[in-house]
Amino acid sequence: MTEPAARATLVDQTAQATPAAPGATRPVVAAVMGEGVLDRLFDDAARVRLAGLSHGGTFAELVGFEDPQDEAVLADIEVLVTGWGCPRVDASVLDRMPRLRSIVHSAGSVKWLLDTEVWDRGITVTSQVDANAWPVAEYTLGVILLANKSFLPSARAYAAEPATFSAAAAFPRIGGYGKRVGIIGASRIGRLVIGLLDRHHVEVLVADPFLTADEATALGVRLADVDEIVATSDVVSVHAPSLPSTRHLVDGRRLGLLRDGATLVNTSRGALLDHDALVAELARRRDVGETLNVVLDVTEPEPLPATSPLFADPWVVVTPHIAGSLGTELGLLAEGVLDELTRLGDGRPPAHPVTREELARSA
Amino acid sequence: MTEPAARATLVDQTAQATPAAPGATRPVVAAVMGEGVLDRLFDDAARVRLAGLSHGGTFAELVGFEDPQDEAVLADIEVLVTGWGCPRVDASVLDRMPRLRSIVHSAGSVKWLLDTEVWDRGITVTSQVDANAWPVAEYTLGVILLANKSFLPSARAYAAEPATFSAAAAFPRIGGYGKRVGIIGASRIGRLVIGLLDRHHVEVLVADPFLTADEATALGVRLADVDEIVATSDVVSVHAPSLPSTRHLVDGRRLGLLRDGATLVNTSRGALLDHDALVAELARRRDVGETLNVVLDVTEPEPLPATSPLFADPWVVVTPHIAGSLGTELGLLAEGVLDELTRLGDGRPPAHPVTREELARSA
Repeated sequence: MTEPAARATLVDQTAQATPAAPGATRPVVAAVMGEGVLDRLFDDAARVRLAGLSHGGTFAELVGFEDPQDEAVLADIEVLVTGWGCPRVDASVLDRMPRLRSIVHSAGSVKWLLDTEVWDRGITVTSQVDANAWPVAEYTLGVILLANKSFLPSARAYAAEPATFSAAAAFPRIGGYGKRVGIIGASRIGRLVIGLLDRHHVEVLVADPFLTADEATALGVRLADVDEIVATSDVVSVHAPSLPSTRHLVDGRRLGLLRDGATLVNTSRGALLDHDALVAELARRRDVGETLNVVLDVTEPEPLPATSPLFADPWVVVTPHIAGSLGTELGLLAEGVLDELTRLGDGRPPAHPVTREELARSA
Repeated sequence: MTEPAARATLVDQTAQATPAAPGATRPVVAAVMGEGVLDRLFDDAARVRLAGLSHGGTFAELVGFEDPQDEAVLADIEVLVTGWGCPRVDASVLDRMPRLRSIVHSAGSVKWLLDTEVWDRGITVTSQVDANAWPVAEYTLGVILLANKSFLPSARAYAAEPATFSAAAAFPRIGGYGKRVGIIGASRIGRLVIGLLDRHHVEVLVADPFLTADEATALGVRLADVDEIVATSDVVSVHAPSLPSTRHLVDGRRLGLLRDGATLVNTSRGALLDHDALVAELARRRDVGETLNVVLDVTEPEPLPATSPLFADPWVVVTPHIAGSLGTELGLLAEGVLDELTRLGDGRPPAHPVTREELARSA
């Protein structure tokens, strides 16, 4: 039995509660993000904390780098807090921020935001890619746990015939114990899902062309190829990046390999799944008396046309791209930013640095 | 960020892999449970392991204590493995098993199975009440995670208007971060749910008349009364025992206190919830443009009549009492029994002992 661990948080709360070491200098901070984004991330309390971590108890708010009136502000900035809607930071922008030493990104990937010139100039970069990935992993965990319990199928079957329904008879393999979960892609999110599954009594297989068998073993799982995963798992969850080489990774052939009653989950990108083939496969399964449970948080196209048969299919749940950070979860990104600023002020290393090498590998 | 812990199991796998210490004596074992129950719990491999842990590499299988032909078997039994369908073990049964020193129960509560005489005679009792509770906690965790993500409501709203749907606009409080989860009943299952939530960024309130504020704090949660929980939580999950004093604990008044958009989960017993009041409250909410999400794994009556409006209500999911051990999860009970027998053979203390005091407290 897993011992209940100390209540975990994504950020180091003790660090936030600690006042800055005497003499620590607060940096000159500016937040640059699209109109209204800062307000969505930082509630009043978080905004006050952000100001308190900035030089003079205040920070500049910009929506871009174009306004000539901001020139003096840019010249002083030591820490740039970036977010959704921030324009690209390239050499010409960097030239106008000669004192810049850190970029604290409040969202996920910085690949399209930051020129490699940033690293050339020795500027530290951190991002909230872990905090941003976390809600997707939570969503996936919830779907896996309920899929193993035949949550929706058993509710549907029970409603049709409540007086005589027997779950044990209708779903002999119901239950989380000993089920096989296949993770396609040992991405950041894929690894978070693997970590979250460690308490549950499932066997986890992972497919990833860049993962070695030893690395998989270190994660507590077994490396397998995509075909084995698709053909033998009770739940298959896709966490691979969208690249030309991964387009329609789950195609008609692989959909045909899925077990009767299996669940396919896609929270990555719609392009990973051949949606026309999925519609055809669902029809074929119905004809032969088999079922395929499908949970899609992303689709191709997105949004799906209202006429898509996937909306009407009782075995398919299509959520509107909600697995990632949304709503209250934006507060998690703000917490992460405040944590990084606290570390900066205290002279501690960043919690979530982004190196030039990581940037090259990310999708 | 929570470090991925070592892959956890409910039983100590290393203990099973360890051969008995030289000279360890295997006890004379008999399994007593209803017709076919042993086969549902123990697959072929588990049955072989059970035999291997028994004296002479074999164990007796009985369906009761009535057959006079079993008298000689009973006289030799040292360890009794009980299960669903086993008749009550009272003084007269115990008189016929003079060598009995341990009862290893393969299911949950032993309250109705064992007379207190068992403890009077110094017989050790263990049960799989934790393993039996685990699937309910997993089911509840899955429901909580997806409720926080507005999984079903967002899928429904998206399907109605995919081209223009905005999850952020329609569900501004979507997301797991900072949500409040209210647990009614710090029962074994309630505590397992609290433990499973420790990785997730939710605030947990618990109501239980037998829990002190200090005990709640030790669990990492806050003690509250049922009204506060119902009125302020995003998800309310019921884990209290069914007693005369808990009948309709969630009544019409408390249903009326639930937040707009809240989720109510009941996996305990149907009697805890006033179902007529629930039907009325759902209708009232619809009239005033509010929603209440309801997940019921147990109902009153059970099964629900096919005509129950709860089946047809799009905001209600009724599953057919599947949260507890079912299907593959019976294997978890067998694992627990094998673990206890291994411990017995090795002279180690039991993993899940049941004391006379615990028996008195349980429902």
